[in-house]
This record gives sequence, structure tokens and C-alpha cells, in this order.
Amino acid sequence: MRTVGFLGFGEAGSTMARGLRSAGMSGIVAYDVASEDSPLVRRRAAEAGVELLARPQDLCQRADLLVSAVVCTEAAAAASSVAPHLDARHAYLDINSVAPAVKRAIGVDLASRAVSYVDVAVMTNVTSDLTALPMLVAGPEASEVQSWFADVPLHVTVVSSTVGDASRIKMLRSLFVKGLEALCLEVMLAAYPNGVHERVLSSFEETFGAYSFPELVRHLIERHAVHGERRANELHEVANALREMGVEPMLAEAAYERASWDVRRGLQASFAGGEDPEWTEVLEVLCGLASEERP
Amino acid sequence: MRTVGFLGFGEAGSTMARGLRSAGMSGIVAYDVASEDSPLVRRRAAEAGVELLARPQDLCQRADLLVSAVVCTEAAAAASSVAPHLDARHAYLDINSVAPAVKRAIGVDLASRAVSYVDVAVMTNVTSDLTALPMLVAGPEASEVQSWFADVPLHVTVVSSTVGDASRIKMLRSLFVKGLEALCLEVMLAAYPNGVHERVLSSFEETFGAYSFPELVRHLIERHAVHGERRANELHEVANALREMGVEPMLAEAAYERASWDVRRGLQASFAGGEDPEWTEVLEVLCGLASEERP
Repeated sequence: MRTVGFLGFGEAGSTMARGLRSAGMSGIVAYDVASEDSPLVRRRAAEAGVELLARPQDLCQRADLLVSAVVCTEAAAAASSVAPHLDARHAYLDINSVAPAVKRAIGVDLASRAVSYVDVAVMTNVTSDLTALPMLVAGPEASEVQSWFADVPLHVTVVSSTVGDASRIKMLRSLFVKGLEALCLEVMLAAYPNGVHERVLSSFEETFGAYSFPELVRHLIERHAVHGERRANELHEVANALREMGVEPMLAEAAYERASWDVRRGLQASFAGGEDPEWTEVLEVLCGLASEERP
Repeated sequence: MRTVGFLGFGEAGSTMARGLRSAGMSGIVAYDVASEDSPLVRRRAAEAGVELLARPQDLCQRADLLVSAVVCTEAAAAASSVAPHLDARHAYLDINSVAPAVKRAIGVDLASRAVSYVDVAVMTNVTSDLTALPMLVAGPEASEVQSWFADVPLHVTVVSSTVGDASRIKMLRSLFVKGLEALCLEVMLAAYPNGVHERVLSSFEETFGAYSFPELVRHLIERHAVHGERRANELHEVANALREMGVEPMLAEAAYERASWDVRRGLQASFAGGEDPEWTEVLEVLCGLASEERP
């Protein structure tokens, strides 16, 4: 079994480390830039039975299977801090939530040092039950990831041999999750002071509670194709209503722009008078409109 | 029983008219600015057994219970077109999806003519089964709405005696529904050409499928309070990822601004180190930050 070293030991890294420990792995090490100043990092390491090391080069010497789990703004800097100390002996699993281009750039740099770089997308909140933690992996050595962890059972799915292909899926999932989070904030900034937060939620649930999320998405896209103009205009009213309530309509305005973008380009006309379309038919036309405008 | 007259006879008006007819109401009339040019409007009227009238004043003469159901951009113009012909004999139900201020302005104008103006919010897609069509009503005469329709059973809930209070709830519901619609468009503009649309949806469903919508909203707001900075930064990465894929990150950028707005003002610090907060505790702090900035 290889020796795992965490580069970054925050919530994600320490949770995974506990999972590896309880699956029988020992000798896990970690390096975190904040470890000297952060009692939290030191406590997490103690609780997970992980040895904290003082310098990036110590991590690279002791571990041959690095897991990068830093805050996403530090993914490239973290890789740079260890790169000079890595060679063909090392694999580098990059679980950070960063754009495909960031992972490709890190991958190119590390591949030039013969490091096996893997783009890993963690597809849910990190849990220490590693068998329940769906991970997508991409890169030339993606199919070897499970073997590197020997008999610790992971829930990995190989997406492709191209770095960035796992990250892309994760980014679009994140747009749904964190976009919805932001939408919740904007609705509630207006609803809560008026005492209507429960009422707004229960109305949504009353109409859409029977839909699964994929069904709801398909339904909304199909409705958009037929009634997009009316629905976009309603977002304009919503933005005005938010301003009345003293809330800056950041998402309402952006949603109006997004929903009226294709209306202005004739999406609705493509589906006028016919049967209600399937969502993939709508997406064909929608993505066609977008590709026409690319340089 | 009063005589119902639809001001605007599009999808919403004609669907409600069919519902009133099948509940036994007769003598329904309608006026639509487009009726001369639109075979669709005339066909809908014929199918619903509704007499189309030529002029706004004809509508006001024949009907004493007006239902305004135009496109939302025309709500004020539609009211102006009939206002000179209305008096104390008339009630005016405004079911349009417009901001509270728009309804208040119309309400003030019509009240000056002794018309009973009611702010009506239709809280789901309009269906001809009127007993299954939840409507919120607000205004001085809101509690009389059911009696105006005699023995046609409606699903009306009186919100308050203040015009705009129903509209406000509808606007915030619409921000959820149409904001989510726009989010779907942005995700799918990037996902579909890369063939990952099903994968993104199933990942979301895998993580959140067991949550009701209200549970999901509460969960996201509670997560935001504790991990808002990291989650907002991920939206910044998502925006970069969309640009890579040739999609303008309209919602990703707005969501980043919305989610980082309170992070920059210290929301997360309020919940550092403590128990995971309840969503209403988060909303108290969040709305407090917002009210501090209002002039």
C-alpha cells in the first residue's frame, strides 16, 4: 500500500483521512500551511491519527500518494509548493473544486515531472464513509486510482483519460447547488422581513413537491421553450418587486438576462404551435443558438 | 350571481373561463386587444363559450366582475383602458404577475372611482379546476371575493386588506421558479454540448433527492452560514469554467456576488465555532446586515 499524504488538512482532507484510517490505512501524513497557527488543524490531525509535517518537501519525501485538498483559490499555489519535490514515484490526486483549465495547467506542470496527476471530482459533501463518497476521476492514470488505495474500497468512476473532464461535471453540479443557495439567499432576504418565508416555500412545494429534481429541470426547460417570453418578463417584475423591498435583485436581474437571451434569438418561435417539446429538443435549439454566436 | 368579464383572454383567462363554465356559470364575456388579429383568441372564446366584445366599454357595461389576465407588461395599460368606464358597481380582480407597487398604483386609481380592486396571486399554473387553483387575495374587499362568485367554489386565501401583500408572495415564489428555470438554462447550455446533462442531474438527485424543497432551502442556508466563503469562491471557479466552455456566466457571476455579499459583511463570523445554526437564526443575521445598509 502506498503512503497517503494530504496537502491541506481542512474539513475535506481530515474527513477523508478519518475514512482511510477506519478502513485500516496507517502512516497517513499531512502538510497544511496553517498548521502552526491553527489549533483546529492540529486537533483534527490528532483526532484522525495523522502526522502533521513541517514542510512541503517533508510531505513529498514521506508520501507517494498526495491528495490535494486546499481551499479552491489555493489549488495552483499548493501544487507549486510541492512540485519541485515530486517525481515519477508520486501520484497527485487533485480533489479541489476548480475549473478544468486550472487542473489542466497543474496537470501539465506535474506531468512534465513524470507525476501521475489525476483530476478528481467529489460529487457530494465529503464524508468519512469512503464507499459512500462518489468521486469522478479523469486523467491518463485515472483507471489506476482504485489500485493505489489497495483494499480500501472507494466509490470511484473513471470519466475519461483527459484531465478536466471530471472537473467540468463537478463545476456544473456546483452551479446548480451553489446557484440555488444564492437564489435562496435572495428570496429570503426579501421574504423573511415580511414574514412570508414559510408561505413561499410551501407554495413551491405544493406545486412541485411531486417532481424529482431531474423531472423539475426537464419541466422548466420545456415550459421555457413555449412560454419563455412571458416567464422572462415576470422576472423583470420580480426585480422591481425586490427593489421595492430594499433588496438588490442580483439574481433576479441575471435570471431575466439569461431567460430572455434565447427569447430574443427566437427560441420560442421554434416551438410555436407544435406539440410540447421534449427537453432535449429544446436543448438542441438552445445550444445551436449559442454556438452560432461564438467566434 | 355577478357577470364575469375577462380583460385579456390568453392562456390564463381562457383556462379560468372554462373552469367557471364547467362550474355552471353562464354569460361570461371577454375583451382582448388582440381578438381581431388572433384566430387563437377567437378559437379559445368559442371553445369556452365566452362572448368576445369589441371594446373596453362594452366589457364594463356587460360585466360587473372584471378579471384582468393580460401579459404582465400590460397590466397597468389594461386597467387604464377600462378605468373611465368603471364605477361602484364593479369589482376588479387583478390576477397579473406584477410587482406590489404596480398593483398599488392601479388600486389607488380604481379606488378613486369606487371600484373594488383586489390583488390576486395565482400560486400555481392556471388550471380549469378552480377548486385546485390556489389564489391569494389582498385588498379592502378581499374577504368578499368568494361571495362574488356565489356557489362556484374557489380556493382563495385572504392574505390581508392591503393591496400588494398577495403580489409580494407571488413575486418571491416566481423568483424561485423562474430563477431556477434560468439556472437550468445556464447549466444546460454548458452541459448538453459536452454530453454530461444527465450526469449532472443524477448527481444532484443522488445527493439531495431525499430532501423536500423546503428542507433543501433550509439546508443550503445553514451550510451557507458556516461555509459561505468557500462556497462563494467555488462559484467564482464555476464562472471561469463556463467561460472556458463558451457560456457567459450570467447566473454564476450573480450567484457569486449574492453569496459573497454577506460573507464580506461577516455573516460567517457570526456562526464560527458554534453549533450548526437554524436557518431562521441565519436569516435574522442576514436580514440584519441588509437593513443596516438601507438609507
